Amino acid sequence: MLVLGVDPGSITTGYGIIEKTKGHLRLVDAGSISSPGTAPFYERIHKIYRSTMEIMNLYQPAEMAIEDVFFAKNVKSSLKLGHARGAALIAAVSCGVRIFEYSPLEIKKSVVGYGRAGKEQVQAMVKVILGLPKMFGPDTSDALAAAICHLNWTRHDGRLNRT
Amino acid sequence: MLVLGVDPGSITTGYGIIEKTKGHLRLVDAGSISSPGTAPFYERIHKIYRSTMEIMNLYQPAEMAIEDVFFAKNVKSSLKLGHARGAALIAAVSCGVRIFEYSPLEIKKSVVGYGRAGKEQVQAMVKVILGLPKMFGPDTSDALAAAICHLNWTRHDGRLNRT
Repeated sequence: MLVLGVDPGSITTGYGIIEKTKGHLRLVDAGSISSPGTAPFYERIHKIYRSTMEIMNLYQPAEMAIEDVFFAKNVKSSLKLGHARGAALIAAVSCGVRIFEYSPLEIKKSVVGYGRAGKEQVQAMVKVILGLPKMFGPDTSDALAAAICHLNWTRHDGRLNRT
Repeated sequence: MLVLGVDPGSITTGYGIIEKTKGHLRLVDAGSISSPGTAPFYERIHKIYRSTMEIMNLYQPAEMAIEDVFFAKNVKSSLKLGHARGAALIAAVSCGVRIFEYSPLEIKKSVVGYGRAGKEQVQAMVKVILGLPKMFGPDTSDALAAAICHLNWTRHDGRLNRT
């Protein structure tokens, strides 16, 4: 089964596709989506939508894991984050990809072992879990962490319709 | 020329189509988009996207006017508003509809005459300006107010590429 993890952001959106076969996790593809600094905000948001759609159409993941955001630095940054996160959700519903949301605490706990782990610890553990030659950047690692968390949840709990 | 005004919200999104011919404004269609209270959040957001697309495909407006939000009650409500607003922007970019953003102050000033006008004053003035038999609700009126503001701006300033 292929799972897409997404870490939305209006500047950079990380994504990662993981395949699970016989209990083994394998990286299929990962990267990040961003726009030129000069692009209008609505173009940035549309690019997140468009690129997420392209990734889904290419790999046809059955499920998408995404952070369930409860807070952001401030009202302005949460407005921007909301636009970016909405773009990923719209793409998933349009492509018939089931959506699973996990809190930052659940994701960190699942990947690093405790909920207050820092960005670098997440990056390092994603590298270890997937047996990568080197670490990905924080956005791509967070996206992969969401996908790993989802595959751990479904393995332990069989929670296939969590949201 | 047809202009679509949108007032996004995760609970209710107002919309209105106004036609301008020979300096006269005419209501073409207006209403609101909402989902059953039981619908998951991502379904609500997708419905805003889907319905806005349907309205654009039906009426083919050249331009969309939307409030440029700078603040919301709190971080949680601004996150939700961001998702809804993103849905309208993605639909507009997908349909090739040009986007024009106006501050709440600009919209109120343009429709009521001063920037601190209340919801009911906006509703009443939208009714007068468009010669409607009765007032629309606040969400639909706010959407129409954005469209009226845009047509006033473009009339006075010829500002056709404001954003």
